[in-house]
Amino acid sequence: MSPPIFPARTATAEVELGAVLQPKFGPDGLIPCITADVHTNEVLMFAFMNAEALALTIATKRATYWTRSRNKLWVKGEESGNVQVVKELRVDCDQDVILLKVETSGGAACHNGFTSCFYRKLAANADPAAADTLKLETTATRLFDPATVYKKPH
Amino acid sequence: MSPPIFPARTATAEVELGAVLQPKFGPDGLIPCITADVHTNEVLMFAFMNAEALALTIATKRATYWTRSRNKLWVKGEESGNVQVVKELRVDCDQDVILLKVETSGGAACHNGFTSCFYRKLAANADPAAADTLKLETTATRLFDPATVYKKPH
Repeated sequence: MSPPIFPARTATAEVELGAVLQPKFGPDGLIPCITADVHTNEVLMFAFMNAEALALTIATKRATYWTRSRNKLWVKGEESGNVQVVKELRVDCDQDVILLKVETSGGAACHNGFTSCFYRKLAANADPAAADTLKLETTATRLFDPATVYKKPH
Repeated sequence: MSPPIFPARTATAEVELGAVLQPKFGPDGLIPCITADVHTNEVLMFAFMNAEALALTIATKRATYWTRSRNKLWVKGEESGNVQVVKELRVDCDQDVILLKVETSGGAACHNGFTSCFYRKLAANADPAAADTLKLETTATRLFDPATVYKKPH
């Protein structure tokens, strides 16, 4: 696939209130992407897209990201089976963040086997004055063991 | 407030499955933050925090960010009145993204007067082969007119 040409950014009012997709990619060529469950709105994960990943996501309706650690396109679920079917693609006001609303075929978005990557929350009694000892609580149950799903450690 | 000292990052297993907050700030000293409504899970906005903003958010339970355009701490709602009261603070698996679940006192998170910054979605009939003409549809109603809320244009 040749690199897609998204339109040049125009005036602020048009970017923020207009009806043309004018995504802003950072100096590294990437745009942040938040992915949420279309039914529950639960935030599942956060990743990045380059222009090709965004165009492929639009064309195939399969969430496709750019992995900075492996430095390549990444069709979510290609290895684990936890494919994300894109039901809505949104942009924020200044069009420098993407929000996908998806259905997941396998139920888990996180490589650690949880529905969402955000499976831990700050404990309610955390003492903000002691930033080096703030405790997290895991609030979800693992759906799979990564060792049985991935060939290589992630 | 002196800069808070969050703990050094330890082994991957501890970062990803452990019970200690070990946030990873980027080379610019910032960590991405997704903010969602605690009741509906709707994603409201995306911003960044430095260590001080994160510590203040934990200490005050008022969402506090770092604005890159104005280069300063930003207590959300300090001007518009749309304060975000933090009900949950979550981290993702590798602790390089924050998720806040908040109650908003004013109902609008976006400086353009919408509940969420993600008020536009890609039109259903978008032709992915024509990346320069992809259309957006606004799916929400403005709650306020920015001109009446902010002293200066945002």
